[in-house]
Amino acid sequence: MIPSAKNGLQPLPLIETPALEIPRPTLKDNTAELDRVMRRLKLDGFDPLRVHFLNMQNLMGKIRLHGQKMTAIVSCWNGHWELMDVVGPDHEGPILGMAVDLGTTSLAFHLVDLRERKVLDHLCLPNPQISHGEDILSRILFSRRKENRKSLQDMLLKAFNHSFLELTGRHGALPEDVCALSVAGNTTMSHFLLGLDATGICREPYIPAANHFPMIHGRDLGLSLHPFAPIYVFPNVGSYFGGDLLAGIIATGIHRAQGIQLLVDVGTNAEVVLGNGDWLVACAGAAGPALEGGVMECGMMALPGAIDRVRIDPLTLEAQWHVLGDEKPRGVCGSGVIDLVAELFSAGILTVQGTINTGLETPRVVQTENGPAYVLVPGEETESGQDLLVTEMDVGIFLKSKAAMYTILQVICRKVGLGFKDIEKIFVAGAFGNHLDPLMAIRIGMVPDLPPQLYEGVGNSAGDGAVMVLLDRTLLREVHEVAGRITYVELNVDQEFMNEFRGALFLPHTDSRLFPSVSTPSPEGGRGAF
Amino acid sequence: MIPSAKNGLQPLPLIETPALEIPRPTLKDNTAELDRVMRRLKLDGFDPLRVHFLNMQNLMGKIRLHGQKMTAIVSCWNGHWELMDVVGPDHEGPILGMAVDLGTTSLAFHLVDLRERKVLDHLCLPNPQISHGEDILSRILFSRRKENRKSLQDMLLKAFNHSFLELTGRHGALPEDVCALSVAGNTTMSHFLLGLDATGICREPYIPAANHFPMIHGRDLGLSLHPFAPIYVFPNVGSYFGGDLLAGIIATGIHRAQGIQLLVDVGTNAEVVLGNGDWLVACAGAAGPALEGGVMECGMMALPGAIDRVRIDPLTLEAQWHVLGDEKPRGVCGSGVIDLVAELFSAGILTVQGTINTGLETPRVVQTENGPAYVLVPGEETESGQDLLVTEMDVGIFLKSKAAMYTILQVICRKVGLGFKDIEKIFVAGAFGNHLDPLMAIRIGMVPDLPPQLYEGVGNSAGDGAVMVLLDRTLLREVHEVAGRITYVELNVDQEFMNEFRGALFLPHTDSRLFPSVSTPSPEGGRGAF
Repeated sequence: MIPSAKNGLQPLPLIETPALEIPRPTLKDNTAELDRVMRRLKLDGFDPLRVHFLNMQNLMGKIRLHGQKMTAIVSCWNGHWELMDVVGPDHEGPILGMAVDLGTTSLAFHLVDLRERKVLDHLCLPNPQISHGEDILSRILFSRRKENRKSLQDMLLKAFNHSFLELTGRHGALPEDVCALSVAGNTTMSHFLLGLDATGICREPYIPAANHFPMIHGRDLGLSLHPFAPIYVFPNVGSYFGGDLLAGIIATGIHRAQGIQLLVDVGTNAEVVLGNGDWLVACAGAAGPALEGGVMECGMMALPGAIDRVRIDPLTLEAQWHVLGDEKPRGVCGSGVIDLVAELFSAGILTVQGTINTGLETPRVVQTENGPAYVLVPGEETESGQDLLVTEMDVGIFLKSKAAMYTILQVICRKVGLGFKDIEKIFVAGAFGNHLDPLMAIRIGMVPDLPPQLYEGVGNSAGDGAVMVLLDRTLLREVHEVAGRITYVELNVDQEFMNEFRGALFLPHTDSRLFPSVSTPSPEGGRGAF
Repeated sequence: MIPSAKNGLQPLPLIETPALEIPRPTLKDNTAELDRVMRRLKLDGFDPLRVHFLNMQNLMGKIRLHGQKMTAIVSCWNGHWELMDVVGPDHEGPILGMAVDLGTTSLAFHLVDLRERKVLDHLCLPNPQISHGEDILSRILFSRRKENRKSLQDMLLKAFNHSFLELTGRHGALPEDVCALSVAGNTTMSHFLLGLDATGICREPYIPAANHFPMIHGRDLGLSLHPFAPIYVFPNVGSYFGGDLLAGIIATGIHRAQGIQLLVDVGTNAEVVLGNGDWLVACAGAAGPALEGGVMECGMMALPGAIDRVRIDPLTLEAQWHVLGDEKPRGVCGSGVIDLVAELFSAGILTVQGTINTGLETPRVVQTENGPAYVLVPGEETESGQDLLVTEMDVGIFLKSKAAMYTILQVICRKVGLGFKDIEKIFVAGAFGNHLDPLMAIRIGMVPDLPPQLYEGVGNSAGDGAVMVLLDRTLLREVHEVAGRITYVELNVDQEFMNEFRGALFLPHTDSRLFPSVSTPSPEGGRGAF
């Protein structure tokens, strides 16, 4: 998703680079060296304008070096500008920004050229904190000791610095060329990054240390970007509604929509926002173990080597698949998992309860030490040489995720007195949002049985939102405004949720009236070659 | 001088300490911990309110510790508030401020109780940079190397930290209890304190690195006060017109006067401001060697042991003197020097040229290796056991100072087309402003021959101004406004000055018409017992 201006105007970036011409000082015009540049910038509209005390001597030296002509690097803070650097008049080097989707499982970095207004490159790393627990809860428990909190923070900072070096290096630049950073993380991850006590998040009344974070200077966080680069960390709405989802709202634009739209993101957590330009309701929650670290053995991110499409012949029970990139299969990404479960179900290999039918005569169904499994790719065709298979236990974990996703949609609609039919658009973000095939998702009862054109997979909407604020500073105010008007419904304390959830664990659902298109064979099911 | 409200209202201090009562968080009101306090403060009018990122975790811990009732410490920055600390609900410890007059020769510290609105204590130290030159010029030359600039800065920081420890310790407090710092220094000293390149100050076109400084957090300057205390450094108007004089203007209030007033400060430099609520003209300058390090051998600050009053019997040529405190004499302070020269002149010991009449029959006049001298206090009565004496050379140095002072007043009045008679008030600041006896100063031609009630000695007006901004934050805007409307006249390049100066080197002046009251014996001359 490429950020776009709201009304056709050029968006206003977080960093401006005005060219300056400063008259030579004389006995008649003896304004101080730094004040001359500040005066010029203020006249050009950068007012109020500040400078960080620790940056003054550096700026002075550069102003003296460049003499009368220079390019200023000016950053936008909340309510004021800051002169952060001065470069030569014909500076052709890039003015870079970095946007980060800070997730529990992985960190996605996006390198942005702020003047050319384009994303130059990406990098995705596993969250190094996984060594202290795959799920958020165990990391929060670990963080109760101050030195552990520090250690979790340091892990993130190290990963950030490594990624800055790697991404800028690929483009012949330096980490110090990164003049702005935006971070969209879930509430706990934002706390860990900033070294804040996150223990309140997981005990009643479930409140974070802070929902709003000040803009931070690069040097204060100990990151290797420009020492005076502004760091913007998206605010949270609550313990289970983080800045990542706010960034997703900004990326999809549902906060400006006329009709009712919905954004759903099921990753480590389940999060949903419903609304339009007038109102927004959200719910999110750690609704049981399904949503905390429920990761399938064969699951992986949508990277080269990931299977993203699966078809199973209902007669032979043999599988066809498509792999991303020019590589041997290493795992299955979100859309591949949906396909796989839907096709196993359609082929009769999976029962409505999600168990594997072991009575079938096929070498594809095998017994493992974790119970029965279906071999998607035999070892001779995989990267590792091991069979790529999905076990009944994997399917069980996935069914909890899909049930949570469906249930959360039911609950939120009921809360505001709406039916699924009132929704004009559904954005699916997160692992299942990459290459989403809505018909497949409907077939397994993961999403409501609505026309497929209503669905839009938005993949990493949090990362997109984080890129957008770098390119359009007016969005900072919008994020703040959206955070203020979201009505947040706590799911943790909602018994209703658990009742609905049990029915949704089945394929597609215990109540088949909810999925009329699935009860008959679907001709548009995406079957056949791909 | 005690700071007073402009219109009888209670002034608004730089630091506010509102008592807060925060409702306990519940599932219904699950605003984040820090946000709850910020919300309360904003509702109470502290808006916009910020918090420094590096302070968040500390604040969080204290908020949690104090529960529902606490006292916030909120500091006023340019255009916003900052929550800097949280203490208990019945906090009885002092909320301290520190005001510093940062001079070339000495550093004067004033410890202020911000809640009780009173100055608790003072401390005066020699400027430790004196080891790198008594005059500003040699220190600027020394500072050309980056490591020397650092070393000059470190000397000041060390002296500041030492004084904070000493002054707070005397009152059972800690340096960390100091929640705000204001510094009024001359332009070069402000640069040295902040580690800024000052070399532009002494070469054409004589421009400083910066005239305006941002507010600084204590931790960023490496001072041992509260790490998030705001540090306010008064702006400069030019290389030879520093924040100390701006602070002096604020302390005397001439920038609000209806009639025309004048502030004169002759210390290491000669500085004058003339004007009222509508206009302000200033001149200042290193007008030759008299004003650069011209320090008399016997001179000292107005501290215990300093002679501040002198009378000489014109018949016996014997001296009477008064010493500050309950000590033996150690030296002569500014007002004592004026008395001494005036009385030596009246007694015929000094000629109109300022030479000592060695033809007199008195044991008080002696020959030293530095030429003829007058023994003010014989060795048996002094602290050191050495004679306290004033040499012809000392007198010569002093006459240059007094001539500079008078000349600068002449020049500035002529610049704006006024005569001395148009002035309704003259404030004399600096070394000569302590215990000033205007009739004595007039007798030697140091100040215009005007009615003595027009004169007011204001001693350390820079320190007073620095105290005042701590107690009345509205003055910050006033300082800024005054700095913006001062018309600054450069004296360094004014030939007129040198011509006038030569005539003023005499006692009282070559043009006796300028001092009609001195030509006849003055009955109110302050003679007799004291």
